[in-house]
Amino acid sequence: MINVKEAKQLIDENCCASKVVTLSLLEANGSILAEPIYAVIDTPPFDQSAMDGYAFSFENWDQKSKLTVIGEIQTGNYSDKIVESNQAVRIYTGAPIPPGTDTVVMQEKVNRDGNSIQILDASLVSGTNVRPQGSQTKKGEMALQEQQLVTPVAISFLAGIGITKVNVFSKPTVSIIVTGKELAGANDEISEGKIFESNSIGLIAALQQLGINPVSVEVVDDVEEEIEKAISKQLSSDILILTGGVSVGDYDLVPASLGKCGVQKIFHKIKQKPGKPFYFGRHNQTLVFALPGNPAAVMSCFYEYVVQAISSFTHKEYFKKMALPLAEDFNKKAGLTFFLKGKMGENNVMVLNNQESYKLNSFAVADCLIEFSEEGENFKKGDLVNVRMIL
Amino acid sequence: MINVKEAKQLIDENCCASKVVTLSLLEANGSILAEPIYAVIDTPPFDQSAMDGYAFSFENWDQKSKLTVIGEIQTGNYSDKIVESNQAVRIYTGAPIPPGTDTVVMQEKVNRDGNSIQILDASLVSGTNVRPQGSQTKKGEMALQEQQLVTPVAISFLAGIGITKVNVFSKPTVSIIVTGKELAGANDEISEGKIFESNSIGLIAALQQLGINPVSVEVVDDVEEEIEKAISKQLSSDILILTGGVSVGDYDLVPASLGKCGVQKIFHKIKQKPGKPFYFGRHNQTLVFALPGNPAAVMSCFYEYVVQAISSFTHKEYFKKMALPLAEDFNKKAGLTFFLKGKMGENNVMVLNNQESYKLNSFAVADCLIEFSEEGENFKKGDLVNVRMIL
Repeated sequence: MINVKEAKQLIDENCCASKVVTLSLLEANGSILAEPIYAVIDTPPFDQSAMDGYAFSFENWDQKSKLTVIGEIQTGNYSDKIVESNQAVRIYTGAPIPPGTDTVVMQEKVNRDGNSIQILDASLVSGTNVRPQGSQTKKGEMALQEQQLVTPVAISFLAGIGITKVNVFSKPTVSIIVTGKELAGANDEISEGKIFESNSIGLIAALQQLGINPVSVEVVDDVEEEIEKAISKQLSSDILILTGGVSVGDYDLVPASLGKCGVQKIFHKIKQKPGKPFYFGRHNQTLVFALPGNPAAVMSCFYEYVVQAISSFTHKEYFKKMALPLAEDFNKKAGLTFFLKGKMGENNVMVLNNQESYKLNSFAVADCLIEFSEEGENFKKGDLVNVRMIL
Repeated sequence: MINVKEAKQLIDENCCASKVVTLSLLEANGSILAEPIYAVIDTPPFDQSAMDGYAFSFENWDQKSKLTVIGEIQTGNYSDKIVESNQAVRIYTGAPIPPGTDTVVMQEKVNRDGNSIQILDASLVSGTNVRPQGSQTKKGEMALQEQQLVTPVAISFLAGIGITKVNVFSKPTVSIIVTGKELAGANDEISEGKIFESNSIGLIAALQQLGINPVSVEVVDDVEEEIEKAISKQLSSDILILTGGVSVGDYDLVPASLGKCGVQKIFHKIKQKPGKPFYFGRHNQTLVFALPGNPAAVMSCFYEYVVQAISSFTHKEYFKKMALPLAEDFNKKAGLTFFLKGKMGENNVMVLNNQESYKLNSFAVADCLIEFSEEGENFKKGDLVNVRMIL
């Protein structure tokens, strides 16, 4: 049986080259740029007033004479009439300063009398209150680097420099197959021996957290032909997630069914709890994650392993990992890595109760998974442990 | 002019009672529960085997005799045939143990010879490897508390206990009106004096980050009647965001237009940079945020003030606030609170370059806003500053 570290390495080695997709800015929200972006225009596209005030030529001004106001430029308009040395133009924030001017004096710092203004700002120098053309970004200049996250502000920035589409790393397509004879639908009456199926909705919700809608979700009985039929239909997805049927019981049909469908086993079973019977395989470019059917194992394995594979497609880190001190002692036997449900405090992390893999009540309120190392046994309050945020 | 703290308090005081909405589990993903949830069934719904193995009565077993295997219960099936003291039943993980049994021995811990098993597990006690009915959650028990975040795992948990709909705090409806004669659409040729409009797409993207799609987005010219018409159409939304036209220039028509539409001004202008001319008002239940038109001011004010109002509707904290040490000295004059674009390091936070409110290039790669207090002047490397994450 391999350990967690080996499993993660094998998943990494089997992740394929990312795909690049061209998206509109809003579609790309939250994605990672697959190539640098170059400005297609100067921004601002012209020398622009930074204030409501008066534009004039500081160069040609004797620093004492009054100036005659010869016109007005509202933001959004422009004027190509040359302003002479004894003249000024009423101007507003964002408007292009007219030819012949180089400086703007704020409206609060003049005395205006009819069409004449007296400048009262001793701190003015040439260029004051003017945003030069291209002073944010020049045409042809790199505006954002490859691997940059497309944030809401980045979207506003790109829209402002005339960009409407970007090339980003594509999200993988994901299919889900849930297996189990015992599974009843949400609107069924549950009869003796059945339980409500909850793994598919948990996985859908977790994928939604990453902005992914699965292309297919199917619940199938523990019957070989049905499982094989379901698998073979989904081998065109980038990622196929199965739950249930991966242990060693007589009705654990998933590994054999995957084999019959041509999926190559990379590993089966990891020295971990929960999720020991976890299976990982590959069929051409399709990564296959067959998770043990217990709800807690499904969600742990999703956050620890499936998200790792999704990240390799999107180049995005979804859930921060950090080292935090334990709030209380914790003991376990050596031999398995434990992934336990935790809650982060101000400066530490607490192990929640009810960690059995069939119970979800503490996992439902957890904000992180705490990793207790394979060989570790006696963890003391204050010991640093690896914590993966899941919110 | 009021300061940042006073502004935040006035926004809080004017936020109305939250609305509650009944949603399906997937629709409620990421929302906050408006009431506690009680289990409608016992989970597990029956005494359930935790292993693949053999169910028998430990109570009636002499701890040495062989047992006769009288049948099999596959997961998803059940049997109501009473198992006698010298008998056992082949059983699988998740299957209901049959009447007359109380314990399961793992398949790895028996010698099976035909229909007879010899138990080889000295550690067995009554109840081993059985998950008692209701041991996760009992019918009628509180499963999740009010104010709990509906996480993907919580969704799986709730589906498992038979819940299909939940009451959560509703997201507000949001309308956006962008004003400015200078604004060109993304597919226009920009002519002299015009710039590409980018505030609407930045705000849409930021709302998407919170799972909100605005109900209306309109770009209007700096013309009073047009602005008034646009405002009056959107006063049924919970939140109305305007950008531009809130300063004191002759074409800053938004505050007056809001007044004409019956919006009551709560405050206009805050001692802050960027975003000093920020206006906040209210019309019945509609909160009106009129933001200065500079892109950086728009996004800063959104993250600092509009998100605060959205949180009061949804009861959700969107962006963590924390105190981090400055990576380098920073100096400013007293009198205004500064919200500067920052980048978090391992254990500190760095002020980015290009903080002018018309420039977005550093904001586009920022992961936080750093708050420099109104009265502060000389901030030293290592000083703790308030940081709001925006990703």
